[in-house]
Amino acid sequence: MTGRPGPTTRVRVRRLTGATAGDRRDDLATEEPLEIRVASPDGARRTVAITMRTPGHDFELAAGFLHGEGLAAADGIAAIGYCTDEDVPAQARYNTVTVRLRGPVPDLPSLDRHFLTSSACGVCGSAGLDTLRDRCHPLPPGSVVVTPETLYGLPDRLRAAQGVFGKTGGLHAAGLFTAEGELVAVREDVGRHNAVDKLVGWAALNRRLPLDRHVLMVSGRTSYEIMQKALAAGVPVVCAVSAPSSLAVELAREFGMTLVGFLRGRRCNVYAGYDRVRELVE
Amino acid sequence: MTGRPGPTTRVRVRRLTGATAGDRRDDLATEEPLEIRVASPDGARRTVAITMRTPGHDFELAAGFLHGEGLAAADGIAAIGYCTDEDVPAQARYNTVTVRLRGPVPDLPSLDRHFLTSSACGVCGSAGLDTLRDRCHPLPPGSVVVTPETLYGLPDRLRAAQGVFGKTGGLHAAGLFTAEGELVAVREDVGRHNAVDKLVGWAALNRRLPLDRHVLMVSGRTSYEIMQKALAAGVPVVCAVSAPSSLAVELAREFGMTLVGFLRGRRCNVYAGYDRVRELVE
Repeated sequence: MTGRPGPTTRVRVRRLTGATAGDRRDDLATEEPLEIRVASPDGARRTVAITMRTPGHDFELAAGFLHGEGLAAADGIAAIGYCTDEDVPAQARYNTVTVRLRGPVPDLPSLDRHFLTSSACGVCGSAGLDTLRDRCHPLPPGSVVVTPETLYGLPDRLRAAQGVFGKTGGLHAAGLFTAEGELVAVREDVGRHNAVDKLVGWAALNRRLPLDRHVLMVSGRTSYEIMQKALAAGVPVVCAVSAPSSLAVELAREFGMTLVGFLRGRRCNVYAGYDRVRELVE
Repeated sequence: MTGRPGPTTRVRVRRLTGATAGDRRDDLATEEPLEIRVASPDGARRTVAITMRTPGHDFELAAGFLHGEGLAAADGIAAIGYCTDEDVPAQARYNTVTVRLRGPVPDLPSLDRHFLTSSACGVCGSAGLDTLRDRCHPLPPGSVVVTPETLYGLPDRLRAAQGVFGKTGGLHAAGLFTAEGELVAVREDVGRHNAVDKLVGWAALNRRLPLDRHVLMVSGRTSYEIMQKALAAGVPVVCAVSAPSSLAVELAREFGMTLVGFLRGRRCNVYAGYDRVRELVE
C-alpha cells in the first residue's frame, strides 16, 4: 500500500455458505498504528503513545488523546501535522502525528505512567480512580437535564449519522449530542476509545471544551477508559447501547456523572446521576 | 469493597421503561486494574503492565501476557503469586500479580516499547508488522485442517461454554478448540485481549504450548492485537463472530495463519489461509 491510508480497505475473501464456496470482495475497517509525538518550541520532542486506529481525523485523535491524559490543553497546541521526513515511506508518514506545543514537552514521569497502557493507575495499592482524583474534579450537578424521550432517540440518531460502513458493525461510533438530542458530531474507529478521543479532539480544536452541556453516546459498552475521557472533557451524561463495567459505574458515581446503559428501544438503565434525568410521571 | 474481587459486581440501578421508572439490582462485569510485575532470583523486579481486566484467572492472564509479548517463556516461570504486602489494602493485593522468573528481568528497552500501548510498533517509519518479524516466524502450512461444518458449530459451543453472565453480552469470550471442534478451554473478560491472554496463559502453565493443532474462537472482532497473541502461541486457525480489521488480515496472510470472520449460522468469510479449510464439494 502506498500513500495515505483510507478508513476502509478492500480485500479478497472466500465466502462459505453451507457447503459451497465463492470468491468476493469485502470492505474492512482499516487498522493502522498512529504514533503521537509532542514537540516544544525549543525543539524537544517525545513519543507519547502508539495506538492502533482507523485512519481519519488523526489530528483530532491526537489532540483528544493529549487532552484526556492531561498532557496538553487546547490552547497549549500551536500546530499539528503529519511526519514530513522525506526518507520515511509515504504511508508511514501518515501514521505519525506531531503536536507542536506552545510550552515545554511534559515531564517523563507522567509519560512513563501513561505508557502503562491507557488505563494507567500507578503502583500496587493504588486503584484506578486514585490517580484520576489528582487531576479531575467531580462535575457540578444540574448543569443539564435530559428527558427519557430524548435518551430513547439517541441510538437511532447515532446510527443514522454513521457512515454506511459503520452501520455494518465494523466500527465503533461515538456521538456528541445536545441535551435536547440534536447531533453535534460523530466519529468512528476500530477502537472505541479512539472514537471518543476524536470527538474530544474535535471539541478541543474548535474551542468547544468543556462539553458541560452535552451528552456522549457510544455504540458499545462503557469502561473505565471511556468514562475517564468523558470526565476530562467535562461531559455530564454518557449513554451506551450495551453494559457498563463495574468501574465505569464507580467512576460515574464518584465524579458526579450520569451513566446510562442498555439504551435500546424505549428502555434503559440509569446507573449513576439520576438527578440529570427529568422526573417521570408514573 | 474489601477482599478478593469477583468476576461480577452487583449494583443498584434505575430502570426506565417508556415513561415509568423502577429500581432493581443488576450484575455488571467487574473491571479492576491488574498490575503485572516480574521478579528475578536476584531480587530485581519491575512492573511490565497495568491492564484493566475482569478478576479471575489472573495468574493465567499474567503468564499469557508475558508469553505474547515475548517477555517470558512458560519454562522460564518459577512461581506466580498475588501481592503479599501487609500494608496494602486487601483488594489492592489481589490487583497485583508478581511472576517470579528463573532468569533475569527482561531489559528495560523492550519494556519501554511495550509500554507504548499493547500494540507497540516502534517508531516513525515502522509499521505494526515490522517488529513482529523480529520474534515470530510464519506458521507451517497444513498442520491442521478444519471442515466448514466444524467451523459452523463453534459459535454455539463457545456460547454454551460461557457463564450465564457472559451470555448476556457483558463479557468477551475466547475459546480454544481442537481441529474437530471439541472445546478445550474458555475464558472471559471485559477486554477481549485479556480473554485471549488467559487462554494462552492456561496453555503455558499447563505445558500445552505451542497450540499448533488448535482453533481459537473469539466472540467479537479480530484486530492486530488478537492475531499477534494467537501467532505468538502458534495457533494456526482464528475464528470470530464479527469482522476482522485490515491489519488482522494482513498479519494472518504474512504469517501463514487462517482467519475466519462473520462466522454466524452456516456462513463465514475466510480472509486468509484457505488451505486449512477442507475442500468443499461444490
